Amino acid sequence: MTRQLHAFALSPYCRKVRLALAEKGLGVDLVETKPWERPHALVRLNPAGETPVLVEEDGTVVVDSMAICEYLEEAYPDVPLLPRRLDARAEARRLVAWFDGRFRAEVTETLLDEKVMRRMRRDGGPDSDFIRLGAANLRAHLAYLSQLADRRNWLAGEALTLADFAAAAHLSCLDYIGEVDWEAYPAAKTWYARIKSRPAFRTLLSDHVPGIPAAAHYADVDF
Amino acid sequence: MTRQLHAFALSPYCRKVRLALAEKGLGVDLVETKPWERPHALVRLNPAGETPVLVEEDGTVVVDSMAICEYLEEAYPDVPLLPRRLDARAEARRLVAWFDGRFRAEVTETLLDEKVMRRMRRDGGPDSDFIRLGAANLRAHLAYLSQLADRRNWLAGEALTLADFAAAAHLSCLDYIGEVDWEAYPAAKTWYARIKSRPAFRTLLSDHVPGIPAAAHYADVDF
Repeated sequence: MTRQLHAFALSPYCRKVRLALAEKGLGVDLVETKPWERPHALVRLNPAGETPVLVEEDGTVVVDSMAICEYLEEAYPDVPLLPRRLDARAEARRLVAWFDGRFRAEVTETLLDEKVMRRMRRDGGPDSDFIRLGAANLRAHLAYLSQLADRRNWLAGEALTLADFAAAAHLSCLDYIGEVDWEAYPAAKTWYARIKSRPAFRTLLSDHVPGIPAAAHYADVDF
Repeated sequence: MTRQLHAFALSPYCRKVRLALAEKGLGVDLVETKPWERPHALVRLNPAGETPVLVEEDGTVVVDSMAICEYLEEAYPDVPLLPRRLDARAEARRLVAWFDGRFRAEVTETLLDEKVMRRMRRDGGPDSDFIRLGAANLRAHLAYLSQLADRRNWLAGEALTLADFAAAAHLSCLDYIGEVDWEAYPAAKTWYARIKSRPAFRTLLSDHVPGIPAAAHYADVDF
């Protein structure tokens, strides 16, 4: 059996794991999954009914996006995505938690959920107050990301880490729907252009979600 | 400087870290913190304004409860709280994510937030619909925990892991306010009695939150 990842294309958690797999040079078959339909194949692997779920060639099942990333670090250490120093590892994990916790709650769950996921789940129309709030929060987060990108080589320090992939995973979902005003945040744009041009990013740029067309510049490396 | 943990007594995330520190035999000064007041000392260490934050003797700052636990595993491996086998580590991390993600959203944030945190934040009275929903969700989770405790020595397998501490951290907060009907879930009760009697648990049993008295049996190891 080949390695499989049960994933939904516009899930930032799935994207983080796909980036980590690709950067480490690990091939994977994507099993396109709509978690809100609670498909049997997913719930059998993960009683929480959430993507991503990794199924290794030997049948090992790994659940939860950060647990998968930690597992990949341990199982395939040749291309490390966490630094060696303990304090630098802690900083990378802090930023993963920042994007998967705070950014998710303040931006992704408002903008992406209102604009796309409700439509996909056939769960009513978008709430314009939420969209305005999400857009304002996104500006605050882009300012913070610009600060980091301005004074560091990558978000957590000298090396590319899971922090960059967590951030890029959320922002690429928002970029797919054309919500990111990159011109207003040049340092963030430079960082995103660098990560977008990596070979590992190609898998994301060819994503196509039925019924949700990508913004014109989404797949363009010179955006 | 001694090791410090900025923590709030009824935060399950802080409790998980306190249990991990105590089990590893690492002394710590608790800096009692009310994160919703956004105290300067906290926000300076963690721009997300959340507890727990660990400050090591050498000044290293570690933010986010799971990042702290992973850091403690790496810095102080003598008493491991994750198994050695990669698939067993993944299972322990899955359960940490289950309790800190799903259990938090379905139980802790409804029951504990409505019954206690609103009062502490002076943010209106409890909503009885939420409390009923949280109580029903708690029963479903206790049934799942009983299943795990019935067929395994500890929740993630043979050894005590961070999964047990994550679960005990949430349940001990709910037990503090007397919300857990242990008698209806004997396997869960046996598991909780075992973890409650560990020396590492003593720090939690002496907690006293001003204005929120602990339930009569809270500190009783024979409950």
